[in-house]
Amino acid sequence: MNVKAFGSYAGDQPLQTMDITRRETGAHDIQIDIAFCGICHSDLHQVRAEWAGTQFPCVPGHEIVGRVSAVGAHVSDFKPGDLVGVGCIVDSCQHCDDCDAGLENYCDGMVGTYNSPTTDQPGWTMGGYSQKIVVHERYVLRIRHPEEQLAAVAPLLCAGITTYSPLRHWNAGPGKKIGVVGIGGLGHMGIKLARAMGAHVVAFTTSESKREAAKQLGAHEVVLSRNAAEMEAHGKSFDFILNTVAAPHDLDAFLVLLKRDGTMALVGAPATPHPSANVFNLIMKRRSLAGSMIGGIHETQEMLDFCAEHGIVADIEMVRANQINESYERMLKGDVKYRFVLDNASLTV
Amino acid sequence: MNVKAFGSYAGDQPLQTMDITRRETGAHDIQIDIAFCGICHSDLHQVRAEWAGTQFPCVPGHEIVGRVSAVGAHVSDFKPGDLVGVGCIVDSCQHCDDCDAGLENYCDGMVGTYNSPTTDQPGWTMGGYSQKIVVHERYVLRIRHPEEQLAAVAPLLCAGITTYSPLRHWNAGPGKKIGVVGIGGLGHMGIKLARAMGAHVVAFTTSESKREAAKQLGAHEVVLSRNAAEMEAHGKSFDFILNTVAAPHDLDAFLVLLKRDGTMALVGAPATPHPSANVFNLIMKRRSLAGSMIGGIHETQEMLDFCAEHGIVADIEMVRANQINESYERMLKGDVKYRFVLDNASLTV
Ligand SMILES: [Zn+2]
Ligand SMILES: [Zn+2]
Ligand SMILES: [Zn+2]
Ligand SMILES: [Zn+2]
Repeated sequence: MNVKAFGSYAGDQPLQTMDITRRETGAHDIQIDIAFCGICHSDLHQVRAEWAGTQFPCVPGHEIVGRVSAVGAHVSDFKPGDLVGVGCIVDSCQHCDDCDAGLENYCDGMVGTYNSPTTDQPGWTMGGYSQKIVVHERYVLRIRHPEEQLAAVAPLLCAGITTYSPLRHWNAGPGKKIGVVGIGGLGHMGIKLARAMGAHVVAFTTSESKREAAKQLGAHEVVLSRNAAEMEAHGKSFDFILNTVAAPHDLDAFLVLLKRDGTMALVGAPATPHPSANVFNLIMKRRSLAGSMIGGIHETQEMLDFCAEHGIVADIEMVRANQINESYERMLKGDVKYRFVLDNASLTV
Repeated sequence: MNVKAFGSYAGDQPLQTMDITRRETGAHDIQIDIAFCGICHSDLHQVRAEWAGTQFPCVPGHEIVGRVSAVGAHVSDFKPGDLVGVGCIVDSCQHCDDCDAGLENYCDGMVGTYNSPTTDQPGWTMGGYSQKIVVHERYVLRIRHPEEQLAAVAPLLCAGITTYSPLRHWNAGPGKKIGVVGIGGLGHMGIKLARAMGAHVVAFTTSESKREAAKQLGAHEVVLSRNAAEMEAHGKSFDFILNTVAAPHDLDAFLVLLKRDGTMALVGAPATPHPSANVFNLIMKRRSLAGSMIGGIHETQEMLDFCAEHGIVADIEMVRANQINESYERMLKGDVKYRFVLDNASLTV
């Protein structure tokens, strides 16, 4: 089946309209008419070949929402017309410890939604900047939000789960003081989610101009990370800090804010290394510096249900296909509040 | 009360015999005749003023064992003649969350056994290279080993608890694969303890010559960390790695050996930073890089009892006071299996 898509033929070329092939709907497959697709920083890094191993043509997009258009013979949990989502994962080995634990995101055989090896044409996966996608039922999520919120649900599939998973894993909740570093696509979800989980939420930003916005997102307090006095006032007080900033920065400034046994989890990998963290800051209070990558399928469904229940969606700006290249430039400047979402209906034009 | 001690008047001078003052035995104090004192790397760093803030004269030593010689009026748990130990902590605030949790080692008001502020003469604490010490009962440990093992028990008070605490905290035990990096004063205890806890123990060393020794200490397997093939065979397989190496080294080589949710804990702080760890290695398997510092008083007692029950002591080489300076030089060359212990009876000579 041929579908319209938007992607690139080389790292130094802009994205453009193209035709791609989707496989027939297998016995355990679900075919989805994609309504919207969030635009993630990873899309940009991959399609511009800033990350190693980009296969061209490359069609990015892993924050996919839409309606089921067909189901395979053995699919019983979904039917045509259902509102569904697909995130960063479209396959995995299905039998390792990670898969058994519902943490397909850590499976060595995880197949990403784009640029991962597959037996489908042309040999690597093609993402959500496209009209349709066919995905094994295991990796399809149910969306229980009202349909009018569908576009704003899309970013939950990557930005939402990438922040929800570590917040849950490190026990954000009532009585816990949680920091969120960076107020962008990931950070704005982290603030909303940590607040809804019942934690005391402190947002960190380098920009005075984001102070009010962070409060409106749900932060109880906002700290200007360049203000030493503001930072010091929070010394040794955090249970957990979710650090969404991928740009190299001083990790010690945040590690010293953790109380004993506190953890700071990084969810972005910098292109060049952060300055080496001071081991003393880890040793002194038995602190941990950790990482976390997206989340498993089961917890992605849990996250979507949690968000539906709490009325949580992303703050988005809708774009048409012919605005994607421009939106990448704006994303690089941080000029988006807080996530671009592609209107996939515009792919036909 | 005046007692003989061995210490230094300046960072660039050798240690020598000196007289120091011990306070009168207060209502909650225990006065101890020190029989032996382990010689720790920290002693060397402090007395040579390689660490900031050394007060002179400086008398090191925080691996203290001996017999109670007097107890204060309110002391009921100890009596003269009891075999006791004192580790790295002689006081703390006694009312913070850390103290309440029995983790005085993380108390901001922790008073180290040497070079910490005190109201005693001369204003900072003096350690175990001395004939006697007077310590609040809360910080005195009971020794249940046979008396003939007393000298070899001394290193348990720092090297023992520094490795026992993280092994317990990160759940070393049956069914767990535990790595121990570095086979020195700390590492040799880590191997013995992890083995006695029932874990599968893999020792890492840079030196082929230590392979047999590590096995004799209890390691099930020994890996030459410079051998890429040996390292790769253990990829993604460890639940926990205890890293005792303070010299700057490549942390990534060990992080990639951790399975999902695995932790590597550092117990030594390097003088210059380790190369910055690759954030990707943390993110990919939700791994943690952590630190740990000695241990609390309650768990130090637990460790001593565990060691008595399992017949565990340190491997030591006894030295007399007039050999301390020489032993420091040998320690710097790694020429000790695995801990020097001072015979405090030699202080009178
Ligand atoms: Zn993404
Ligand atoms: Zn798997
Ligand atoms: Zn020590
Ligand atoms: Zn305290």
